[in-house]
Amino acid sequence: MRVGAAGSPNLGAMDSRTGLPVVGMVGAGQLARMTHQAAISVGQSLRIFAAAPDDGAALVAADVVIGDHTDLGDLGRFAAGCDVLTFDHEHVPTEVVTALAAAGHAVFPSAAALRYAQDKQAMRARLGELGIGVPRWAPVRTAQELLEFGERVGWPLVLKAVRGGYDGAGVWIVGSGQEAAELVGSGIPLIAEERVPLVRELSVLVARSPFGQGAAWPVVETVQQDGVCVQVLAPAPGLAAVTAERLQALGLRIAAELGVVGVLAVELFETADGVLVNELAMRPHNSGHWTIEGARTSQFEQHLRAVLDYPLGVTGMTAAAVVTANVLGGPAVGPGIDERLHHVMARWPEAKVHLYGKRVRPGRKLGHVTVLGDRLELVRERAVGAARYLAEGVRP
Amino acid sequence: MRVGAAGSPNLGAMDSRTGLPVVGMVGAGQLARMTHQAAISVGQSLRIFAAAPDDGAALVAADVVIGDHTDLGDLGRFAAGCDVLTFDHEHVPTEVVTALAAAGHAVFPSAAALRYAQDKQAMRARLGELGIGVPRWAPVRTAQELLEFGERVGWPLVLKAVRGGYDGAGVWIVGSGQEAAELVGSGIPLIAEERVPLVRELSVLVARSPFGQGAAWPVVETVQQDGVCVQVLAPAPGLAAVTAERLQALGLRIAAELGVVGVLAVELFETADGVLVNELAMRPHNSGHWTIEGARTSQFEQHLRAVLDYPLGVTGMTAAAVVTANVLGGPAVGPGIDERLHHVMARWPEAKVHLYGKRVRPGRKLGHVTVLGDRLELVRERAVGAARYLAEGVRP
Repeated sequence: MRVGAAGSPNLGAMDSRTGLPVVGMVGAGQLARMTHQAAISVGQSLRIFAAAPDDGAALVAADVVIGDHTDLGDLGRFAAGCDVLTFDHEHVPTEVVTALAAAGHAVFPSAAALRYAQDKQAMRARLGELGIGVPRWAPVRTAQELLEFGERVGWPLVLKAVRGGYDGAGVWIVGSGQEAAELVGSGIPLIAEERVPLVRELSVLVARSPFGQGAAWPVVETVQQDGVCVQVLAPAPGLAAVTAERLQALGLRIAAELGVVGVLAVELFETADGVLVNELAMRPHNSGHWTIEGARTSQFEQHLRAVLDYPLGVTGMTAAAVVTANVLGGPAVGPGIDERLHHVMARWPEAKVHLYGKRVRPGRKLGHVTVLGDRLELVRERAVGAARYLAEGVRP
Repeated sequence: MRVGAAGSPNLGAMDSRTGLPVVGMVGAGQLARMTHQAAISVGQSLRIFAAAPDDGAALVAADVVIGDHTDLGDLGRFAAGCDVLTFDHEHVPTEVVTALAAAGHAVFPSAAALRYAQDKQAMRARLGELGIGVPRWAPVRTAQELLEFGERVGWPLVLKAVRGGYDGAGVWIVGSGQEAAELVGSGIPLIAEERVPLVRELSVLVARSPFGQGAAWPVVETVQQDGVCVQVLAPAPGLAAVTAERLQALGLRIAAELGVVGVLAVELFETADGVLVNELAMRPHNSGHWTIEGARTSQFEQHLRAVLDYPLGVTGMTAAAVVTANVLGGPAVGPGIDERLHHVMARWPEAKVHLYGKRVRPGRKLGHVTVLGDRLELVRERAVGAARYLAEGVRP
């Protein structure tokens, strides 16, 4: 494989049955599940490192290793059977990623890049150096630091854990220093951030290969509810073409500056004064699930192409309007998932359903539904209706 | 599941981890591989009965049982873990399929339907009863019968094995009774068929559920070489809309009359005088691989929906022109498959590549390439170029 040619080590685990390199993904949630699905097309079978045998991706893949993703020994044994390692989440400690690379494994994204998706403080500092707009922020270790920052940007403001946040976890809106006293005193490394007056949230998804090739998908609008993405509208309605192009260029620039290999999602705040970067993710991302049917190359296939240093695929849309709605677990009442699926297929025969093989738990992302068409509002109504029925078993 | 409600037995193997019924597919070639890929979306993990652990589908699925598909004991043990059984090929003996159903397993298509895809003589007799046009044919057990048939329809004519033919195997063009003497004397049950003056070959793909719902995809043209399909053009160029609709209705009628559940491919001869049925297949079919990207619902997802008695998905095309070209193994010279894939992705970034995880052998179907677009000729040139490069490692 060309990872070797590009200067990275080639361990030569090449699958003798297929003549193709072996890609290992650490983490076995829906992102690994859908990456495996895409891998099948390009002759691959994703090797998966799972926490438990009933993880969503472990249910559907042939080559699954169970282990602890913070344990270098477990990961080292997994990596020995892979030509390239990549991730379905950001939770492998930076020092473990560094150690895997030092042991000769090809790891994409690298620890040096991944750090900026793991550490919110490092990311903001780095983007600041690059002159890229982010909300005003400050590291906060003491009540005094929080008070000073609050006086500067106003209350309420946002506190975020520097590491480990996800889907609204590790994020707190606080109205005063008093309200945040316990949190600030807990010793968790925090940053404080101004609460930006949002018009809406956007996301730009790009991919980059070790060779340096880049590809960007159309910019999308993401609709959040309680800190969790519930809808993705592609392309972002009413976004000026010049702005969309500028944001694609921004995504590609961040990928290049940080040395990202694979998919990079740049979550954005649109404000009356412009666009600010909110968060980065260096893996396939919820805001890109629409690309499975809605783009000529899906984010999952593209991530594989990128980490294999294959040329990237075209990213054009397959329809004028594409909407993905997440299926978030509702109360466990009403018809079971099999019955719900039956009704959804009858009512919305054009809906593309994706279920992640998870047990229902309130608020848990169980799947998503994508609908394609000509008119955004119609497409959106269908996607949201189908997702809600799958989630709650109630008719719209 | 509703298979029970429709009168078929429900063995209740329901996957406790997902709350969904378990579909088992007998056979682990590329059709099972791509069905597993589609199954992942609808929350499933296909349970696969393979002949060997390195069969294409066995390489990518979590739940694989190795066994002999002619052995009722092996298949019964496999079926015990499934709610529904279906097939990736026609090679399970009719009496074994019958015995599985008698033992209480839900088997789709049923033995009664499958028989017409397994036995060329029974199929022609049945279609004749239904008044559906097929080439003139006769069963041939003796040299005298062959001579009489040859005098009636003219030489050369076609001899076909009643059972077990595939991709040109079990089919012989013979110029005289003398030429066929050895074959006719071998005791293999044969039919003789007139050699129809072809304009081209077409295929109509339909699906039918136990509930009786039917769905048809646009009619396609299939291009054959040495008895093997090499290209599929969707929709069939220049086919009158009224003819296309009539052929879709024909496909749906055959599915209903024969009691097919799942996908049915009806291979057709277009002649100057009309269209005749050539062969039937009751499973996803090579002439439907274009539906993965080219139709709103792929044949693989539709087959799953049908055997689960889920409502069927919409079958409209996602582009004006879709071409699939098969990758047939060439001589094992030149760059390896990994290198070829790299070049194909660079040269044809819009091509959708599908590799089946098979070792290269001359003439073997190793994969296919699909290209979508507005103009058939351009799309075709790209699909054929990419497939040829993958097959032979030479630039077009």
